[in-house]
Amino acid sequence: MSKVAIVYHSGYGHTKKLAEAVHAGVASAADTSVDLIAIDAEGNITEAQWALLDAADAIIMGSPTYMGSVSWQFKKFADATSKPWFSQKWKDKIGAGFTNSATMNGDKLSTLHYLFTLGMQHSMVWVGTGLMPANSKAAQRNDINFVGSFSGLMAQSPSDSSPEEGPLPGDLDTAKLFGKRVAETAARFNK
Amino acid sequence: MSKVAIVYHSGYGHTKKLAEAVHAGVASAADTSVDLIAIDAEGNITEAQWALLDAADAIIMGSPTYMGSVSWQFKKFADATSKPWFSQKWKDKIGAGFTNSATMNGDKLSTLHYLFTLGMQHSMVWVGTGLMPANSKAAQRNDINFVGSFSGLMAQSPSDSSPEEGPLPGDLDTAKLFGKRVAETAARFNK
Amino acid sequence: MSKVAIVYHSGYGHTKKLAEAVHAGVASAADTSVDLIAIDAEGNITEAQWALLDAADAIIMGSPTYMGSVSWQFKKFADATSKPWFSQKWKDKIGAGFTNSATMNGDKLSTLHYLFTLGMQHSMVWVGTGLMPANSKAAQRNDINFVGSFSGLMAQSPSDSSPEEGPLPGDLDTAKLFGKRVAETAARFNK
Amino acid sequence: MSKVAIVYHSGYGHTKKLAEAVHAGVASAADTSVDLIAIDAEGNITEAQWALLDAADAIIMGSPTYMGSVSWQFKKFADATSKPWFSQKWKDKIGAGFTNSATMNGDKLSTLHYLFTLGMQHSMVWVGTGLMPANSKAAQRNDINFVGSFSGLMAQSPSDSSPEEGPLPGDLDTAKLFGKRVAETAARFNK
Repeated sequence: MSKVAIVYHSGYGHTKKLAEAVHAGVASAADTSVDLIAIDAEGNITEAQWALLDAADAIIMGSPTYMGSVSWQFKKFADATSKPWFSQKWKDKIGAGFTNSATMNGDKLSTLHYLFTLGMQHSMVWVGTGLMPANSKAAQRNDINFVGSFSGLMAQSPSDSSPEEGPLPGDLDTAKLFGKRVAETAARFNK
Repeated sequence: MSKVAIVYHSGYGHTKKLAEAVHAGVASAADTSVDLIAIDAEGNITEAQWALLDAADAIIMGSPTYMGSVSWQFKKFADATSKPWFSQKWKDKIGAGFTNSATMNGDKLSTLHYLFTLGMQHSMVWVGTGLMPANSKAAQRNDINFVGSFSGLMAQSPSDSSPEEGPLPGDLDTAKLFGKRVAETAARFNK
Repeated sequence: MSKVAIVYHSGYGHTKKLAEAVHAGVASAADTSVDLIAIDAEGNITEAQWALLDAADAIIMGSPTYMGSVSWQFKKFADATSKPWFSQKWKDKIGAGFTNSATMNGDKLSTLHYLFTLGMQHSMVWVGTGLMPANSKAAQRNDINFVGSFSGLMAQSPSDSSPEEGPLPGDLDTAKLFGKRVAETAARFNK
Repeated sequence: MSKVAIVYHSGYGHTKKLAEAVHAGVASAADTSVDLIAIDAEGNITEAQWALLDAADAIIMGSPTYMGSVSWQFKKFADATSKPWFSQKWKDKIGAGFTNSATMNGDKLSTLHYLFTLGMQHSMVWVGTGLMPANSKAAQRNDINFVGSFSGLMAQSPSDSSPEEGPLPGDLDTAKLFGKRVAETAARFNK
């Protein structure tokens, strides 16, 4: 049985919806339990949630991309991880990251590079999407990995879409496959 | 009169087409001359072309994104710039960058971050697209800056498109505006 | 007369000391006024300080590197810049960045890459250190640009140093030269 | 028995020396075989060496940092990996990276971010140094991870040092620990 924790911040609900799709993907993997942890509007999580992170075999981190990187609430969480960092408590956990923003690119890779950098400071072992992009002339917006990311999951929700409207179905399907991949990687690493 | 040089590598012709659109944008600016320099298939340019770069007020660098960064031919050119770097001959030139790849994201930001990093080593002053992204529900693929980049220009050409088919018209229009912006920035900086 | 604003967050005083050295460098430039704006412990600045930023010809942004990027307080400020971003109020201002951390590398470049990315979203024109690194066998810790950065200023203060002890004198001298360069670039761009 | 391959380019011999230290670290791990593959001055490796990479459980990639990223010879190798990439032949191999340059920072993180980005395109699972930095006032240049990197190994050799003189002993010891960590991660992942 391997344990996966998803910790994310969502400002308007789009990243929450994405996190739920990642959650569904993790839950679809064999012999895996999963916890979904929302960072609150002040950038905090509870002591019980910190304990879940400490106990996890894999931690998937998610944030919207705001002004070119993670939201400040996610960063406040990240700064607070200096405590487990100091004793390298998260060493050798599987790490992964996801993000959503309104623009097709919109510096989403900057966010994923940051999540990776944070994971490396914690001596995590990083896993990406493992998905080829849909990039031929016949490609459709709702194809798997149309947004086209490797280092982690990227989703896009138009600036005036509600969380019901965005992220689009293809991005949510991509999120499920990504969640499943992280879970399977954790299972393999911890068997 | 300000002088702009565009130096680029193109493997299959798509980045060449993009470079030509950037060229058209630069040429549309007042009191500006422009040179278009193609790095050859072995990663070389001529002595006369090096002299054009040395004499330019602005250098715009372009490359396809191959395997997550600039092509090796572009990198060979970049490595050869260690000569002007050593004497900081390009200090205070305006710098800018552009890239094309098949995938919507596809690590294009990694390429632009590299071009910026190279520009900073040369003590250039860097200018991006200056264009807001098209990211509402009503946005269309051929809108200006639909691909959605700030640090430099990004274009996307499907993996099975010919250079005649890609980059798409909206990306080429975006390239023209980007070229014009670089030229105007150089003119302002050198007046 | 050109106006430069320095906006920074400091958690323990080291980055404040660095900001003051940058300030001294800016102030040493001809025909330049300079404002030093500290982001508070909750990530806020005053309305009057926002007005100073709006009025500036150049904005220099500074933050410690915490857990691989800017502090959450700086990021809260960055997220709040979405308001001037929306109307591109800061377009064509000169932008620059600096950071301090305990470790020689310690992912400081990740912080500078973020500050650059933020600057590009605001359509700023970016300027780095313009300083060659001290990297020969004879190089000493207090040489100019010993830490060795181009994209912005990096300083290093040992983890157990007080703000009186760190950043080291050479890094502070480097900061002065960096501040002067930004001021002179702004003056040239706005003459 | 797990198989580790180290593939690197060295221009002047410093990165070769670093690669040999990584090799020694890998070889010190239990039940591990290791191959050391040098990319030649034209950016090529042999068919037999490609086969070693295909057969490896882990691939450690190394390059000097030249002008802000990997050398062009390494990039030529990276571009040639588009062949195994296309069929995702390297999926789920452990990946890791290292670099050397003359300057303490000198954009080495840009190189490591590139190696990571390449690894992610290949759907590798990425492992960093797993080493805390030496960053107190008492820290000495030859302490483990004094250069201070997490995402991969960084070493520094003064610009006028011979390969016999640089990288320094502490960086070589750090390289051994890094190699051992990669080997142990591969063993755990493939048991």
